[in-house]
Amino acid sequence: MGFEICYRNVGDEDIYEGESLPLHPTERVPLPFVLCASLGHDLTKRTLLIYGHVDVKAVTPQEAWVTNPFKLTIVEGRMYGRGVADDKGPLLGWINAIEAYMASRIFNYSKLQYQCNMEVPVNVRFLIEGGEETGSEGLPELLQEMKKDFLKDIDCVAISDSHWLNIDTPCLTYGLCGVIYFYVYVEGSKRNLHSGCHGGAIQEPLIDLQALMSSLISENGKVLIPGVYDYVRRPEKEELERFAKLDFDPDTYTNQIQTWALYSRDKVEILRRRWLLPSIEIHGIEKSFDSMGAPTLIPKEVMGKFSLRLVPDQNPRFLANRVKCYLEEVHLRRCSGNKLRIKAFSDGRPFLADQSCSNYRAAYEALRHVWKKEPDLIRDGATIFMAGALEEATNRDVVLIPISENQDFIHDGPEWMSVRNYINGIKVFATYLHKLRCLGLADPKDEARKQDLRLKWRKYLW
Amino acid sequence: MGFEICYRNVGDEDIYEGESLPLHPTERVPLPFVLCASLGHDLTKRTLLIYGHVDVKAVTPQEAWVTNPFKLTIVEGRMYGRGVADDKGPLLGWINAIEAYMASRIFNYSKLQYQCNMEVPVNVRFLIEGGEETGSEGLPELLQEMKKDFLKDIDCVAISDSHWLNIDTPCLTYGLCGVIYFYVYVEGSKRNLHSGCHGGAIQEPLIDLQALMSSLISENGKVLIPGVYDYVRRPEKEELERFAKLDFDPDTYTNQIQTWALYSRDKVEILRRRWLLPSIEIHGIEKSFDSMGAPTLIPKEVMGKFSLRLVPDQNPRFLANRVKCYLEEVHLRRCSGNKLRIKAFSDGRPFLADQSCSNYRAAYEALRHVWKKEPDLIRDGATIFMAGALEEATNRDVVLIPISENQDFIHDGPEWMSVRNYINGIKVFATYLHKLRCLGLADPKDEARKQDLRLKWRKYLW
Repeated sequence: MGFEICYRNVGDEDIYEGESLPLHPTERVPLPFVLCASLGHDLTKRTLLIYGHVDVKAVTPQEAWVTNPFKLTIVEGRMYGRGVADDKGPLLGWINAIEAYMASRIFNYSKLQYQCNMEVPVNVRFLIEGGEETGSEGLPELLQEMKKDFLKDIDCVAISDSHWLNIDTPCLTYGLCGVIYFYVYVEGSKRNLHSGCHGGAIQEPLIDLQALMSSLISENGKVLIPGVYDYVRRPEKEELERFAKLDFDPDTYTNQIQTWALYSRDKVEILRRRWLLPSIEIHGIEKSFDSMGAPTLIPKEVMGKFSLRLVPDQNPRFLANRVKCYLEEVHLRRCSGNKLRIKAFSDGRPFLADQSCSNYRAAYEALRHVWKKEPDLIRDGATIFMAGALEEATNRDVVLIPISENQDFIHDGPEWMSVRNYINGIKVFATYLHKLRCLGLADPKDEARKQDLRLKWRKYLW
Repeated sequence: MGFEICYRNVGDEDIYEGESLPLHPTERVPLPFVLCASLGHDLTKRTLLIYGHVDVKAVTPQEAWVTNPFKLTIVEGRMYGRGVADDKGPLLGWINAIEAYMASRIFNYSKLQYQCNMEVPVNVRFLIEGGEETGSEGLPELLQEMKKDFLKDIDCVAISDSHWLNIDTPCLTYGLCGVIYFYVYVEGSKRNLHSGCHGGAIQEPLIDLQALMSSLISENGKVLIPGVYDYVRRPEKEELERFAKLDFDPDTYTNQIQTWALYSRDKVEILRRRWLLPSIEIHGIEKSFDSMGAPTLIPKEVMGKFSLRLVPDQNPRFLANRVKCYLEEVHLRRCSGNKLRIKAFSDGRPFLADQSCSNYRAAYEALRHVWKKEPDLIRDGATIFMAGALEEATNRDVVLIPISENQDFIHDGPEWMSVRNYINGIKVFATYLHKLRCLGLADPKDEARKQDLRLKWRKYLW
């Protein structure tokens, strides 16, 4: 398609203390890790950076996949396949949209015909990586390097790596949560011990771990770590009013996620808990006797995994430290002889965009134009590390345009996107490019905010 | 050797609701499940029942086994192999002892030579099973049947299926703990959920489970379930004084089990916690994200496994009910929408023998005679289901004569017994048979206690 291509090295991965392996093309990662592609250097056009990733999550649970996860299969208007929504599908959507502009012949994709032979309305840059699902290792450092070249002339950034809140109303995402992941190790002895022989005399690591994990969250889901709500913004009245009008029904939601345990059935409260408040989720306990059976053994060492979702204005380093100090204090108070070790790693900072910027206006209008209805302005509790990282590295507004329906099968279960959404997604992307052109080279308001953006990311130091 | 052999059927095993498989010889259990062997019907001799099992625990952790677990290997005076101490070794020891009496030629086993050609001093009955490590399924029902025939004429029972408290002083065990095993299921939704998308809105099953498990035990190891200490006997002063004199050193113990987390470093207190007080041990958490990696998912359903060790006078059914009610109450108080389900199963009741009975006197004297020192009278926190079951079924005293050293590798790690202990164990068994004969047919004190024994087991109904 005429793109200039360049592969960038993302450095080495720490495998073990002192040992490392290159993250760039190896047998383990057969795809070039970061692909940079450029199309157009027209100074009369805006330069748009599109970010996406080609790596996917593992196929779990296998029994839930009816079709081959690695062969795109359409069943009743839905395209099933690993990556179809997260994130190969949207990425291909962008390429299709640009292709459509360039097309001098009739394309025929799934009943959609287009013949444009028009100039692409913006200069396009693609940043495509293959390590998003494993934490985009090495990319933050690479972005710093790229500031000097590839990212120098960017005017706006677009990412399509999230999903709608529902299945019928298009959405535009302006907020994301950050996340810190914690590993909590409690080590008791060098050997698993027979629970009959030694039970009662020994402070068990798993009992300590359970107490530590239980001390994190109250019965109503409140995070109990002191200071965790210190920098959380008071919700704005108008944002809560907007939540009340979103195409989101608590009953539908409950049915969709098939749960009977929500803290609240109130629409605004559910969204407030998901989007505006920090929360802790416990994922699992490693190294206990977790396979089937009833062993009478005391595990020698156990490890608990949990994550803390952050909302805007919360600094991950500060909070990681708070969590560590708190858990150490709880452990000290228990007077346990077991050894506690906590490892924290941050996958991303919270992200909050200014919906009034020209980039968002272009996306909003594109969505409205294609879907013939007002899109819902939403946040998302998930984390897209690159949203914040690219805003910081380019000092430009980043817009998040989800195209797939809400389905919650993105990471676990059969991932899908409807054909309708895919086709309309391409149209939205194409219209968005056009709208960006219409808005002219630069918006004075955007220019005035550049200094703010630079300052904004200082508070999220890790 | 002239034994009359008979295989007994232990009925069917419930595999699934409505489905069952025979426990008696199948492809799954190639050994006859229960073997009954009888030698001698001399009315002038006591009839001794010896119980043992030929099944073993799995070989875990595999990396800890230096030798082939299923090939007896002697390294520096220690015999290594799965079952060498629990319980094939001791069982073979009994057979060797009887063989020695019968031998009219010189046997040469590991430097030990014996030639006796003597009458076996007691009538011998063997009850050998192949399902001890999986809960002796079907055996309780079979024992009821056997009361009419095989168990009818038993005068005393001996079991060698425990181990010493130390490595240098022979022990005689007079008390065992009982055990109830609990599975606690908390179910939240039909699907694992993305923790970023839904975190904060959902009451997580794993958080509930952690809170439930944490509510069981206090920081100093006290069981928090109301009523759990109700029937626990106040420790007798003389028993505690005896504990103080046992060949047991807290520092050696700490080094041996390689832990740094004991509730107490006091000798008597350690033993009191292990032997005289009920305790709860948490074994593992099933169905959470327990394999390596940092998934951002909320597990849909989790299951916690713990056991409650019982001490004499505690009724398992009563306590299982208490634990269930307590956990249900804790769950109710948390106002969680998640579904709680608790399954309890009991593997055994606590056991406490009367050390003054003739059976114990015979064993005590045999140990003293062979080892040339006073044996330590000990309890054990582990459970041997058949100790209580056989006392109840035969209405006769059951003696526990451990022959292997304390090593704590019986269920996890390389199991061993020293050659010294094995040889002396055979001598102890042979001497014990002789002492039984010397004590005559019946002790008036034993006869008077028969009624007590019958009443004793009523309180342990399950």
